[in-house]
Amino acid sequence: MTGNGFGEIFRVTTFGESHGPAIGCIVEGVPAQIPLDVSEIQTALDRRRPGQSDFTTQRKESDKVQILSGVFNGRTTGTPIGLLILNEDHHSADYAQIADKFRPGHADLPYFLKYGNRDYRGGGRASARETAMRVAAGVLAQKVLNRFIKTPFDITAGLIQVGKEKIETWDNAEINKNPLFCPDPLAVPRFEKVIRNARENKDSVGAVIEIRACGFPAGLGEPVYDRLDADLAKALMSINAVKGVEIGDGFDVTGLTGTQNADEFFADPTAPNGIGFKSNHAGGILGGLSTGQPIIARIAVKPTPSVASELQTVTAEKENTTVCTVGRHDPCVGIRAVPVAEAMTACVLADHLLRLRAQYA
Amino acid sequence: MTGNGFGEIFRVTTFGESHGPAIGCIVEGVPAQIPLDVSEIQTALDRRRPGQSDFTTQRKESDKVQILSGVFNGRTTGTPIGLLILNEDHHSADYAQIADKFRPGHADLPYFLKYGNRDYRGGGRASARETAMRVAAGVLAQKVLNRFIKTPFDITAGLIQVGKEKIETWDNAEINKNPLFCPDPLAVPRFEKVIRNARENKDSVGAVIEIRACGFPAGLGEPVYDRLDADLAKALMSINAVKGVEIGDGFDVTGLTGTQNADEFFADPTAPNGIGFKSNHAGGILGGLSTGQPIIARIAVKPTPSVASELQTVTAEKENTTVCTVGRHDPCVGIRAVPVAEAMTACVLADHLLRLRAQYA
Amino acid sequence: MTGNGFGEIFRVTTFGESHGPAIGCIVEGVPAQIPLDVSEIQTALDRRRPGQSDFTTQRKESDKVQILSGVFNGRTTGTPIGLLILNEDHHSADYAQIADKFRPGHADLPYFLKYGNRDYRGGGRASARETAMRVAAGVLAQKVLNRFIKTPFDITAGLIQVGKEKIETWDNAEINKNPLFCPDPLAVPRFEKVIRNARENKDSVGAVIEIRACGFPAGLGEPVYDRLDADLAKALMSINAVKGVEIGDGFDVTGLTGTQNADEFFADPTAPNGIGFKSNHAGGILGGLSTGQPIIARIAVKPTPSVASELQTVTAEKENTTVCTVGRHDPCVGIRAVPVAEAMTACVLADHLLRLRAQYA
Amino acid sequence: MTGNGFGEIFRVTTFGESHGPAIGCIVEGVPAQIPLDVSEIQTALDRRRPGQSDFTTQRKESDKVQILSGVFNGRTTGTPIGLLILNEDHHSADYAQIADKFRPGHADLPYFLKYGNRDYRGGGRASARETAMRVAAGVLAQKVLNRFIKTPFDITAGLIQVGKEKIETWDNAEINKNPLFCPDPLAVPRFEKVIRNARENKDSVGAVIEIRACGFPAGLGEPVYDRLDADLAKALMSINAVKGVEIGDGFDVTGLTGTQNADEFFADPTAPNGIGFKSNHAGGILGGLSTGQPIIARIAVKPTPSVASELQTVTAEKENTTVCTVGRHDPCVGIRAVPVAEAMTACVLADHLLRLRAQYA
Repeated sequence: MTGNGFGEIFRVTTFGESHGPAIGCIVEGVPAQIPLDVSEIQTALDRRRPGQSDFTTQRKESDKVQILSGVFNGRTTGTPIGLLILNEDHHSADYAQIADKFRPGHADLPYFLKYGNRDYRGGGRASARETAMRVAAGVLAQKVLNRFIKTPFDITAGLIQVGKEKIETWDNAEINKNPLFCPDPLAVPRFEKVIRNARENKDSVGAVIEIRACGFPAGLGEPVYDRLDADLAKALMSINAVKGVEIGDGFDVTGLTGTQNADEFFADPTAPNGIGFKSNHAGGILGGLSTGQPIIARIAVKPTPSVASELQTVTAEKENTTVCTVGRHDPCVGIRAVPVAEAMTACVLADHLLRLRAQYA
Repeated sequence: MTGNGFGEIFRVTTFGESHGPAIGCIVEGVPAQIPLDVSEIQTALDRRRPGQSDFTTQRKESDKVQILSGVFNGRTTGTPIGLLILNEDHHSADYAQIADKFRPGHADLPYFLKYGNRDYRGGGRASARETAMRVAAGVLAQKVLNRFIKTPFDITAGLIQVGKEKIETWDNAEINKNPLFCPDPLAVPRFEKVIRNARENKDSVGAVIEIRACGFPAGLGEPVYDRLDADLAKALMSINAVKGVEIGDGFDVTGLTGTQNADEFFADPTAPNGIGFKSNHAGGILGGLSTGQPIIARIAVKPTPSVASELQTVTAEKENTTVCTVGRHDPCVGIRAVPVAEAMTACVLADHLLRLRAQYA
Repeated sequence: MTGNGFGEIFRVTTFGESHGPAIGCIVEGVPAQIPLDVSEIQTALDRRRPGQSDFTTQRKESDKVQILSGVFNGRTTGTPIGLLILNEDHHSADYAQIADKFRPGHADLPYFLKYGNRDYRGGGRASARETAMRVAAGVLAQKVLNRFIKTPFDITAGLIQVGKEKIETWDNAEINKNPLFCPDPLAVPRFEKVIRNARENKDSVGAVIEIRACGFPAGLGEPVYDRLDADLAKALMSINAVKGVEIGDGFDVTGLTGTQNADEFFADPTAPNGIGFKSNHAGGILGGLSTGQPIIARIAVKPTPSVASELQTVTAEKENTTVCTVGRHDPCVGIRAVPVAEAMTACVLADHLLRLRAQYA
Repeated sequence: MTGNGFGEIFRVTTFGESHGPAIGCIVEGVPAQIPLDVSEIQTALDRRRPGQSDFTTQRKESDKVQILSGVFNGRTTGTPIGLLILNEDHHSADYAQIADKFRPGHADLPYFLKYGNRDYRGGGRASARETAMRVAAGVLAQKVLNRFIKTPFDITAGLIQVGKEKIETWDNAEINKNPLFCPDPLAVPRFEKVIRNARENKDSVGAVIEIRACGFPAGLGEPVYDRLDADLAKALMSINAVKGVEIGDGFDVTGLTGTQNADEFFADPTAPNGIGFKSNHAGGILGGLSTGQPIIARIAVKPTPSVASELQTVTAEKENTTVCTVGRHDPCVGIRAVPVAEAMTACVLADHLLRLRAQYA
């Protein structure tokens, strides 16, 4: 219960701080007999890894993952899968100057108020480094989905807004062709300009990510509290720096009337259940259950609070001072949050698929 | 685990369909020795009850609640509190005509696809009637908060947008003076006009609700998955018709830079921990923990899917037809969702206060 | 988490005190489309009901159960099933004389120390009356098992020891032919004599119950903490007055060597998995998983602490006094615990069957 | 939910197989600011470690534990504590001959039937090697208890029966003076003789362990399902080879009458709550709550199923054969289960102390 795990049947529990000896996780609920090679997890981690373009932090994290249990002779055994990444790139000295100051927009202050101490080296447990384990778990979630869904399915996240710039088109195939995970090639230079501009101003910039999960069966989700949308909202809001979650039309739904927002049905022998939808304002979820339509979610990611500009703050002794973060930080944390959002969505869907199977397989 | 409860220590489990014999809930985690009278719960239920203005459904629900356990001689005993409301106003006949049709925007279709049958009378389990138990539970959550927080605190929700009309001011004292729970008296006639207009057009309209929780201690929330914002997101997204949740600046954060979004600190001997904040873009939550600032959340509520206009749909036999809901429905479900949002916020805060106490009381 | 529920997917949450307005429960996890009539639950409750022979309390509990939700047109809907029994036979006056005294062997004292107050009327929440809901839930557990296990299976509990008297034979068919749920007709008069003797001495007597669950598939249980035997131990130990739980040979295993205790295998084409066992010392569970053999458990039930003899005690004001319980009590609570043990076993097996199905259906 | 963790607030989740790369665990719920040095955990592990006398397996397990997270500058931080032990002594070859055979009394068969494959190297996940993490977690549980209980308390387990030989006296101080963890020095040579005899006969022998927890407050436990005795029963039954759990007089309670079994009260100003007990048949637990008296539990540990004698079995292809385990095995697994039982008891008590604090600190 104590906050370091999520999921019920497909369950992930993580540990580790950004500048401690290691981060790791235990993944439960993966069925036995699924082929698994460590390289599959490594590939996903490499996608999230920093230092791959000049739009993300230049911190070097090798993120080399080891599988410590749950796999024997190349297949899962049904027992918990232990994953470990040793931390390597400790520029803890970078943080010495902030050891006694609370960085605005960071977890520093509430951690200090709650726990009475804090690991000031790079955010400790609150660091986005923890999200590496989410990406690793996402690979196993995809394995679970693959094991049981026999028709094509796909979970894809993309960066759809940076600052006030937005995409105009969405093409899955474009997402891995640019370092921003942007589905619209024409938006890439506009996004890049906003990010470069922010960094030149010793500042940072916010972003919006959209997640599209297609090909999933109807009935995922458990009314009335573990609704699929509710569990997605929790999983996505638990990602560092996320301040908003929308399903389908989200906040825009306010501007629609009931008739405009209705996703009308029609008989369609080619559709999964013989029923077609004229639109998808609902984002594939009604009454907390998936409908079989694409599941659509969006998250707002705040600008990195670590900026090279001077900000007003106080010390632990309550004296006014200023702080200026000179470490190596992402000017737009929204970029590296894309694979994390994808992974969290996969974890939620895998968990609910197993939950559905318990009674309705 | 099966979806009908929420909370860990302060835990609510509900049952009941809109047109079955009764709805009810079990509330666990309320400490012993707290004075409790059934009238306190009744008062809160009456506030959510339909039929109180011409802006909500004219369905008569007496919503008379009984306490079945957990209270002895006017005080809680520490054992689970059982609450029951018998259903009375069964116009099930209204629903006969839709028994074989799936209403667009409703849970009808995914329930049918998942469970193979459905209680077509008014939504069954998916009906907003279930939210009466959330409001009842919210009263007990407030009791828990009162028991342990010795300084003034307050949880208030208000309707801040209907269709495209928005409030311009927020005054807690205004909220209970109008049937819309609107904190801006000047916005009330504008909101009323939009709602009346929608109903005249046999249509409905969406809304935005803001929740403000003030006076709460720092440190509520459990990193990294049971963050306070993550648990609020789940709790609020689990309310019927909600399609989006924001904390603090929410999606607007995208348009801010890191320096603009920073809530800078300054020494303030009058502030709870001696530390003042220059702004509250974060909505009172950093790193998943409350900071001591007001906790601010907003939710988007979709227009009622039940409209008196004709919509395209199919029957269970996959034949094209139309459906037109002639029952008594809210033209703006956002109104009655206000006390529900307040209650869900209280439940999340009560649960996290108890969780905090386990280790840090 | 707060202690009033058990099970993960098949989950039961109960409320209610012996002398409050009602007791009830919410049962989650029952799949949709299972035929269910309230009379099926009533029949099981009648079996546990007191006042049916002169070996149990003469308290009249009509125990008339109502289904409040989760069933529509005679079939389960997949939503939570709410059950309610109104309390009727309130001889609270019987308890007035003990309102200020702690009865030895009862929950009175620790409830008072923990909660600061107590419902002294008949045990309140600690009363065995709560077990009526367990028996009701057990019926639904049997429905779940029936839904998914296509070969014959059976869960039967019997009274195998009263005081120092033990059975010598076990015949399932005998159990419902005598008021003691005893599987050995020759032991019945011996058991009756011990019980009558205890009552005449204003005393009570302990008992042992054995539970046999036959026909269950291999693989039930989740290593290493939610082992089938561990979950059975918890479920059975949670029954009022139980002080010990054994699986298979239990404590007698201490007197065996490893070779004696080994349940050797042999090829047996007629056995479920083609493998026969030469013995069943293990009680059908190895490594926390069911093996396909009969699952055997035994529980020790203490003598009723409510006796008509005078016992030394203290008042809430810490003054020495005596207490003598003149209410209507079972001289051997072990008798009525038999259907409860059966029900709890059914609940554990149903939950683990659903858990197994999630990954291995 | 998937079985690899236990506890609610003080929660332990483990991973790892006996012959995989490592075993480890994540411990959640430890409050911040508690001094912790890795040597404290190592000392406890050394006590459980095999190869320390000729009564346990001669397998060399260095069991060198590392703390990977949750501790900074010698104090806990409130974040999850990750612990790791690399596996070193891989005599996997010993197991080659049994790779295709199911060992009677082992988890081999049900694991194979459930998961379709098995890690035959020494038991894999079902190996008692996993209990090293329980012992490590027990140290942290003791830290939690120490943090909040300000008066002396003590949790001690001892070996009280081997085969049919029993202790006659209990002296805490003797337990660590002999390799059998036996509290009666006069019983030690008798126990040793039984164990030596078993080994000489290529056999093994069962045992009984008693656990005594003194100095704990009243009120631990959550009625009616998470009773303290129920949670102890689950925790203890989840230890490898345990087949029975008793509280207080346990199965012997059957031979007592209600008046004999009553633990009468008397006014005692020197007792914790001013109330003395004339006896402790209840083992310190009434109604599922601790009473303040010593908490007493006993467990039956079966003889090691791995014996050097030839046993009848079948291969995975269902052919009759024999198996004879020539590896290095404990002739009496009950010995090394003593520190494990102590650790599990500490974990349950720490969890319930935190649970109590949530509402009643």
